[in-house]
Amino acid sequence: MLNQVIIAFTGYFSILARRNKRLKMSKKPLILVTNDDGITAPGIRTLISVMCTIGDVVVVAPDSPQSGMGHAITIDSTLHVEKVTIDDGPQTEYSCSGTPADCVKLAVREVLDRKPDLCVSGINHGSNSSINVIYSGTMSAALEAGIESIPAIGFSLLDYNWGANFEHSKSFIKTIVLNVLNNGLPKDVVLNVNIPNVSKKEIKGIKICRQARANWEEEFDKRTNPMGRDYYWLTGKFVNMDHGEDTDEWALKNNYVSVVPVQFDLTAHHAIQQLNSWDFNA
Amino acid sequence: MLNQVIIAFTGYFSILARRNKRLKMSKKPLILVTNDDGITAPGIRTLISVMCTIGDVVVVAPDSPQSGMGHAITIDSTLHVEKVTIDDGPQTEYSCSGTPADCVKLAVREVLDRKPDLCVSGINHGSNSSINVIYSGTMSAALEAGIESIPAIGFSLLDYNWGANFEHSKSFIKTIVLNVLNNGLPKDVVLNVNIPNVSKKEIKGIKICRQARANWEEEFDKRTNPMGRDYYWLTGKFVNMDHGEDTDEWALKNNYVSVVPVQFDLTAHHAIQQLNSWDFNA
Repeated sequence: MLNQVIIAFTGYFSILARRNKRLKMSKKPLILVTNDDGITAPGIRTLISVMCTIGDVVVVAPDSPQSGMGHAITIDSTLHVEKVTIDDGPQTEYSCSGTPADCVKLAVREVLDRKPDLCVSGINHGSNSSINVIYSGTMSAALEAGIESIPAIGFSLLDYNWGANFEHSKSFIKTIVLNVLNNGLPKDVVLNVNIPNVSKKEIKGIKICRQARANWEEEFDKRTNPMGRDYYWLTGKFVNMDHGEDTDEWALKNNYVSVVPVQFDLTAHHAIQQLNSWDFNA
Repeated sequence: MLNQVIIAFTGYFSILARRNKRLKMSKKPLILVTNDDGITAPGIRTLISVMCTIGDVVVVAPDSPQSGMGHAITIDSTLHVEKVTIDDGPQTEYSCSGTPADCVKLAVREVLDRKPDLCVSGINHGSNSSINVIYSGTMSAALEAGIESIPAIGFSLLDYNWGANFEHSKSFIKTIVLNVLNNGLPKDVVLNVNIPNVSKKEIKGIKICRQARANWEEEFDKRTNPMGRDYYWLTGKFVNMDHGEDTDEWALKNNYVSVVPVQFDLTAHHAIQQLNSWDFNA
């Protein structure tokens, strides 16, 4: 009997707790923050400070830089997650041994007790415009959240330096995040936001764009190590042959913040009809 | 004078050599082969043997397994490439310390003396259908070749085992490769080919498809190491809610070889109009 009362009370309190949680949720969104430059990078510290003015913030980010990781995930080794305190902000933070995509998976399945209302990734130190979206750890985290049906945005500043000035990014980030929270995102779409590295007054506004058809012309820097063995460093030159005024490259060059809606359905739907004319029985 | 004669002769012979090379090229395509399971994997050995019946084959593949690497590239460490001999086939082979995308970049810029006519990646041990294309090292190599404007195909067999039987894949691979060489591919499109793990006579044919909207529901296997520290293994269950008969998942389940045309323009073009209605000046 006593047991039953206790169970009944526990049930009652847990209903109250759930209701309070719902009420709290309706006031403040739960925001997951991650990146690919590592949890101590100035870019993510800026993003965390902006998100703390909007919602309840949980950070799950890599313990070391993961640039160029694309959509890598950790299959063949173990993953570690540690609760950490990096500054005196109100956010809760976890440092993770995995890739940006791993961080989102771990956050959703193990760290958070409910699905976040938003996932933001960045601010990346360096551009993720045009073809860079393919190689970007920042955007892979946003895409991973999108696959989990979480509204998601990747932010990047066009300055590769660790000491980059993120100050002018803050108001644009806040505007875009509030639009996403208020309007929602189209199904299976995440945003790739790039911010020019110029002063705030030089920025002309925010522009919705398509990904430019650009690519890297790699140049491998060939060297010989002290033991006489050759090795290479990957270097390259960014080449943009696509000068459309609806592209992210055009927007950035003309001092707009570029916003590209990005999808993870990679099907080239326009090519299906042509391929159906092939003869596979020849 | 003697010098001039020698130069003239050298020039003459080099013109002859170039002409012979052109003639040879016009008969046999140059095929770059790579993968993500590593250069000794049975899947790539099968693919090499099929490609050697079609063209001149150069292999540049990772020296160790790279599954789940997505479109990772090596920025912060050095790359090594070694010429190797693995079997007595007519192909030339190089083993590379980098990711599948690195292998293609290195092949194009450092190893090959001209752009290949085709790049094939695989045969992957395991499916790269639907959302797996995002995480796939096999497909990242094909996409990297596509970015370089090289016709490219990724092949995968629905069997994760190292000892998988690739025999029945051979004729389908040859049919698809010959179609690509004869017809060309639509601009900026590469093919993602998955092959069911059933006997050849059970396979109903080759089907052009779209990528199914499926995802992984991760389950992290949490353990404690001998030092008392928690760690995780990433595991998961594949969930397909998209039962469209035009999807790769439907085709594979119904014993068709699935062919999805894949693009690296990730822009969700259909979402641009909706986003343009947002108010960024609020």
